[in-house]
Amino acid sequence: MRTEIRELKRVRLRKPVLIEGLPGLALVGRLAVGYLVETLEAEKFAELYSPHFPYFVIVDESGHIRLPRGEFYCWRSPDKGPDLMFLIGDSQAQTNQGQYEVASCVLDFAKKHGVETIITVGGYRTEKGGSRVVCASTDEELLERALKAGAVKSPPGSPIVGIAGLLLGLTTMMDMRAICLLGETKGHLPDPRAAKNVLKVLTSFLGIDINLSGLDKSIEEAKRMEEAISGLRIEKPPSRRHRPPEDYIIY
Amino acid sequence: MRTEIRELKRVRLRKPVLIEGLPGLALVGRLAVGYLVETLEAEKFAELYSPHFPYFVIVDESGHIRLPRGEFYCWRSPDKGPDLMFLIGDSQAQTNQGQYEVASCVLDFAKKHGVETIITVGGYRTEKGGSRVVCASTDEELLERALKAGAVKSPPGSPIVGIAGLLLGLTTMMDMRAICLLGETKGHLPDPRAAKNVLKVLTSFLGIDINLSGLDKSIEEAKRMEEAISGLRIEKPPSRRHRPPEDYIIY
Amino acid sequence: MRTEIRELKRVRLRKPVLIEGLPGLALVGRLAVGYLVETLEAEKFAELYSPHFPYFVIVDESGHIRLPRGEFYCWRSPDKGPDLMFLIGDSQAQTNQGQYEVASCVLDFAKKHGVETIITVGGYRTEKGGSRVVCASTDEELLERALKAGAVKSPPGSPIVGIAGLLLGLTTMMDMRAICLLGETKGHLPDPRAAKNVLKVLTSFLGIDINLSGLDKSIEEAKRMEEAISGLRIEKPPSRRHRPPEDYIIY
Amino acid sequence: MRTEIRELKRVRLRKPVLIEGLPGLALVGRLAVGYLVETLEAEKFAELYSPHFPYFVIVDESGHIRLPRGEFYCWRSPDKGPDLMFLIGDSQAQTNQGQYEVASCVLDFAKKHGVETIITVGGYRTEKGGSRVVCASTDEELLERALKAGAVKSPPGSPIVGIAGLLLGLTTMMDMRAICLLGETKGHLPDPRAAKNVLKVLTSFLGIDINLSGLDKSIEEAKRMEEAISGLRIEKPPSRRHRPPEDYIIY
Repeated sequence: MRTEIRELKRVRLRKPVLIEGLPGLALVGRLAVGYLVETLEAEKFAELYSPHFPYFVIVDESGHIRLPRGEFYCWRSPDKGPDLMFLIGDSQAQTNQGQYEVASCVLDFAKKHGVETIITVGGYRTEKGGSRVVCASTDEELLERALKAGAVKSPPGSPIVGIAGLLLGLTTMMDMRAICLLGETKGHLPDPRAAKNVLKVLTSFLGIDINLSGLDKSIEEAKRMEEAISGLRIEKPPSRRHRPPEDYIIY
Repeated sequence: MRTEIRELKRVRLRKPVLIEGLPGLALVGRLAVGYLVETLEAEKFAELYSPHFPYFVIVDESGHIRLPRGEFYCWRSPDKGPDLMFLIGDSQAQTNQGQYEVASCVLDFAKKHGVETIITVGGYRTEKGGSRVVCASTDEELLERALKAGAVKSPPGSPIVGIAGLLLGLTTMMDMRAICLLGETKGHLPDPRAAKNVLKVLTSFLGIDINLSGLDKSIEEAKRMEEAISGLRIEKPPSRRHRPPEDYIIY
Repeated sequence: MRTEIRELKRVRLRKPVLIEGLPGLALVGRLAVGYLVETLEAEKFAELYSPHFPYFVIVDESGHIRLPRGEFYCWRSPDKGPDLMFLIGDSQAQTNQGQYEVASCVLDFAKKHGVETIITVGGYRTEKGGSRVVCASTDEELLERALKAGAVKSPPGSPIVGIAGLLLGLTTMMDMRAICLLGETKGHLPDPRAAKNVLKVLTSFLGIDINLSGLDKSIEEAKRMEEAISGLRIEKPPSRRHRPPEDYIIY
Repeated sequence: MRTEIRELKRVRLRKPVLIEGLPGLALVGRLAVGYLVETLEAEKFAELYSPHFPYFVIVDESGHIRLPRGEFYCWRSPDKGPDLMFLIGDSQAQTNQGQYEVASCVLDFAKKHGVETIITVGGYRTEKGGSRVVCASTDEELLERALKAGAVKSPPGSPIVGIAGLLLGLTTMMDMRAICLLGETKGHLPDPRAAKNVLKVLTSFLGIDINLSGLDKSIEEAKRMEEAISGLRIEKPPSRRHRPPEDYIIY
């Protein structure tokens, strides 16, 4: 079995932009892009399966079962803006090589659908949280647009780990361009506040108008949980996957 | 070398149901399905070998040696009920990708033999044990039948780890249907009581009548062992394999 | 790059017996088979390389460099006994799948050279050491011969980990037969005493006469080292590779 | 996706010598070969990408993004000396098999460009640092030349871990010859002093004249950092990758 994408229906999109938000640091990407999918009532049209996803299944609300997977949704712009394609899902690949395999598979699929621009969304760990949106890109014009939309440039040297980074790195081999938008977060709990911050920049970047107040309830809940545990000592960093390998040193 | 199934003899079965019970949490599946194989005097007809099984061999009672393997048994129903095919064995695959490879191999083999329905059996960890049988399915009708047979629905969100889960998740790609029956257990010792609880539901589900009192001696022994160690502090969770990967968060 | 065997010269052997002694528990196999190779002045005729061996190179006495490898030696019997083929080397494979790949590669090579019988040599960990030689086999006749030569039967259930076990397990698929001879050892230091014990049984088993006193000096040294550290607490078990995977339970 | 080398421009070199300096122990190789590339104003002509490199991307000074990669540079000798080809980059492969795959890929590429001699550069851990340059080779003549240039022979038995070692070990299968030059270092911090020591030997070995004073500022800084932390207890050895696997024993 290899990584594969199953199309549930044939869609033809107009120069779509792919927006990726698989689960990562503080679930920032998953929360932000999931909110877009729901609010825009985007339509699911494909699923990605991989032997590099975790070897378990998930039980949904009605007692049914499914494999961990990625899900592609699409949304057709009502005006002259680009159509949007979204990738959300349950997990990232569990191994080094699997990360490359899944990212390559996503890019081949995007290319086939005419995607030229990719936006990846994730979290950016800082000690104190913060509310900025950090961006980095393979393309000068995208970078400029993101800065205008309120993002700040990533400091040099910091690695962007996982699919949010790899999709960018691999586009340069495929005649596409990409940008990542990373919301600052302390990173040890799901962070809807960081997701909202990213969405402010992302919707401005895309020129679409979306009501973000639907996230406010989650933000309140997250704040209460944060306060509740603030007296507790956190023993373990929240996610091994989002730290670079221990013995890696960038020169 | 790849995962492969060696047929020891050709069998033709009537719409067989596959029942899987490889070793997992508290050995519930292995104990339950092994008991069925013995009691029904099912016949071994195939063996599964994989480079993803552990790299050791096992010495049997007479000093002979064999690789870890899966074993397929079959039983022909004496009346109009379905024939049964069983999968038990020594181990599950040791790697993420190996888990997917072994599960795919099992499903291809089942398909070839006309299997349309798969039942996987395992343990369901709860802090206090409990005696319920939790079920989840890819199919509404199977779910209903299991509930009638005395099972309860799995709460949403809980992952089912390993082959008991993957077989279910992968059937949806192969035009088969599947259900898992998981006996509640504390999970840190082999648990024949949980196995018996599952067998009550499973035999009712299948409409076969089997004397389960043969498990009572093992249950007594397990109870004594449990009491003997109840004063000792357990340092380590019993099985790393049946916890989901540490940094995985389901949204 | 895949696991491969490079023949340094063409040899034709008379029904050779393959004797394996790659490094393992307390180096018993490596010490025993290495001693045979030296004493019989066996001739090297092939080398095995694998990407599953460790990713380093070894510097020899004269400052030259080589990859970790397996080495095949042969020895022609002067009388009617069988010719012997030896496998020694620097390392076993580092991964689960690599262990299966290397063992399969060795068996294909052995088969090509007409080998019908394989003997693997290793250590058998016991708390107090002991001086017995434990055996297990795929074949009744080999087992009987080993018992006559002074070995004792392995207790059932104990796994034999690594290539010494896998070679046996995999022969059953290839119309060959195999036996392992494991010298009892505490296992935390190279143990030439256990190697000598195995050689007593092995030479009797093969019907060859070899002076084993060449090991006595190493035995004396090992004894002194053992005594020197006997006051020290050993923090760590000597070899992770020779314990079965932690969460494995044989039913 | 597999390991692959992308040529940015076609170059034809005269019997080039390949000099490898990917990041390793104390970054000695990376610092030394990087200094050569800069000082000689060598020209980049190819890049190596691999799914065995870490799954993150790197943000450069201007906010742009790239995958971890290896970079090949070339330099044409102005006189009758050999042309030089350099390999530097961000990382070594993260897995055992990946290390073999990347090294094999580099050698195939080198062979294609007519390389007959390979020099790998790295660090050599000693407790007290020291300022010697240790060498080991597949070839007697190279070894002699290195000794004349001021290197000392590696003591036998010590493994050379990672690509600096594997490139040497694998050349023997490809009709090339190779030598490694390893600068003594304590190994827990980037060590430009060790890099300079290696460069003294390497430039003498190659017969090229290069001003090494450009490293002196980094050496001063490293010295101050060393002193600043000398009062602190180092809890963890600096790099897991440069110790041999724990349970490996060379006989």
